[in-house]
Amino acid sequence: MSERVFSGATRIESVPGNDRGIAYGDGVFETMRAARGGIAWWPAHWTRLQEGARRLGITPPDPAFVRAQADELLADDDAVLKLIVTRGSGGRGYAPDAGAAPTWVLSRHALPPAAPAAGVVLRWCSTRLALQPALAGIKHCNRLEQVLARGEWNDPAAPDRDAFEGLMRSVEGDVVSATAANLFVLRTGRWWTPRIDRCGVAGVCRRWLLDDLDARESRLDVTDIETADAVFLCNAVRGILPVARLGTRTWTPHAQVAAARERLAQANPAFSAINPETT
Amino acid sequence: MSERVFSGATRIESVPGNDRGIAYGDGVFETMRAARGGIAWWPAHWTRLQEGARRLGITPPDPAFVRAQADELLADDDAVLKLIVTRGSGGRGYAPDAGAAPTWVLSRHALPPAAPAAGVVLRWCSTRLALQPALAGIKHCNRLEQVLARGEWNDPAAPDRDAFEGLMRSVEGDVVSATAANLFVLRTGRWWTPRIDRCGVAGVCRRWLLDDLDARESRLDVTDIETADAVFLCNAVRGILPVARLGTRTWTPHAQVAAARERLAQANPAFSAINPETT
Repeated sequence: MSERVFSGATRIESVPGNDRGIAYGDGVFETMRAARGGIAWWPAHWTRLQEGARRLGITPPDPAFVRAQADELLADDDAVLKLIVTRGSGGRGYAPDAGAAPTWVLSRHALPPAAPAAGVVLRWCSTRLALQPALAGIKHCNRLEQVLARGEWNDPAAPDRDAFEGLMRSVEGDVVSATAANLFVLRTGRWWTPRIDRCGVAGVCRRWLLDDLDARESRLDVTDIETADAVFLCNAVRGILPVARLGTRTWTPHAQVAAARERLAQANPAFSAINPETT
Repeated sequence: MSERVFSGATRIESVPGNDRGIAYGDGVFETMRAARGGIAWWPAHWTRLQEGARRLGITPPDPAFVRAQADELLADDDAVLKLIVTRGSGGRGYAPDAGAAPTWVLSRHALPPAAPAAGVVLRWCSTRLALQPALAGIKHCNRLEQVLARGEWNDPAAPDRDAFEGLMRSVEGDVVSATAANLFVLRTGRWWTPRIDRCGVAGVCRRWLLDDLDARESRLDVTDIETADAVFLCNAVRGILPVARLGTRTWTPHAQVAAARERLAQANPAFSAINPETT
C-alpha cells in the first residue's frame, strides 16, 4: 500500500489531528479498480463523489489534479485505488466551515485474491442499517454500521465464519446490501436490486448493471432473496460475484449471471482478469 | 489549539492517511472541561469512552498515560480538552483488526465565549436522527447527522440564524437532543429528558443531572417541549444552559434551573466560572 495525502492542491505528509474526517467521519470516498493504469468507471466514480460532496456541502478537489496524482501513484499497475475526501481541518464543534480546503488521501492497494470460482458464500448480519434518507446513497465516511456488521464473523464462534460477505437488512427488515457490495436477484424472469433511498450506497457497478440488466429497484425481504433463481453481489473492485450459498440455500451457476459477467468484462476490460473462471 | 497524536503508547506527528478514523469515523471521543488543571467528571468521561470502545470492539489506550499527557497539555489552564480514540491504522475494508493499536488525539481548545445571561435561543433542525440502537448512547465519531443539522443555520437565509443551538428529532418525530447538548424539560413539577436508547448521546452532564434532579427518561414530542414550564440544555463543556426562546415560545428564568446550576457549580467548581450570571 502506498499513499499520498493532500490539503487542497498541496501535498502534505499525513493527516492533521484536527481533521474533520477523524473527528466526525465528515467525508466521502471512492474505491476503484485500476488495470494497466486505466481506472474503471472513473467518470462515474467522480460524479458520485461530487454528488455526495454536494449533499454534504464539502468542496471536492480539482478532478484533473486528482486524476493526475492517481495516474502517478498507479504507475500503470493493476491495483485498487482508494480516494477519501474530507471536509478538511476544523476547530472543535459540528459547524462546517464553508471555506475549508478539503483533505484528500489517495492510496494504492494490491488487488484482492480471486473469489471462489463456484461462487461466494454469504451470511446474514445481525447489525441493521438505520433509515437516514439524508445520507442514503452517498458513499460517506460514517461506516460504523458496516464495521460492526463485518466484525460479526471475526468472532471464532460465529456461524459461517468463512463467509465471503454478509447481507445487511434495514432496521425495518428489508434487505439492503452486503457490507461492501450491492445485491441483485433474479425473480420471475427479471433482475431486482434493493432500493437505496433510505439507507445503503448507490454503487457504481450497481448503476451500470441497472441499465445492463434492465433491472428494477424494489424493497426486497429475506424470502425474496432466499427464493430467488439466482443471486449475485457487485462492486467496483470485484465486478460481479455469483453467490453459491446463503445459510442453507444454495444456487448453481446461472447462465444469465455468466452472460452479465461476460458483458461487463467486454465493456470494462479491468474486470476480465478477475473472473474466477479465468484466474 | 494545541494537540498531541499517539499510536498506542507512542507519540506520532500526525494521523496516518490509512487511519480508520478518517476512513470510517471508526472511533469514539470525549469533550471535557478543564479548570486549573482539573478535568471535570474525568472518571465519568473515561467510563463512557471505555464503554463505547467496548461496544465497538476498540481497545482504548492506558487511562493513566492518557491522563498524564492531558495534564501536561493542559498545564493547569482553564480549557476545553478533546480526546479522540480511533481503532487505529487499517488496510482497505471494513473488517476490524483486533490487534490494531488505537490512534488517539488529545487537543486543548480555548473556552467558548459565555452564553447569554438571559438564556439561549434554540431552533428546530430539519435533519433527523436515524434510529440505530447498536450505536445509541455512544459518543462515536459518525457525526454526519450533527454536521448537517448544525450546517442548516449557516445558510444566510435560515430562520433564527443567530440561534445558539438546534433541537433534533428522530426520524419518527420524537425530540432527542440539541446537536451538541442534551435536553431537560420541566413538566408537571418533574424534570424529563429524552430517552437515548435508539439514537443520541448519553451525555456525562445529563447523567449527573438525571441523579441530581431525580429526572425521568421518556419519549418527548415537540408539544412536550413547547409547553414545558422550563427548558435547559446541558453538556460537559458548558454545564447547564437555560433556554430563553424556541421559535415563538419564550421562557423567563426559572428558579429550579438556577438552583440546579448552583448545585452543579458547587459539585464541580469548573462550572462556576461559566454561569452567565457571573461572567
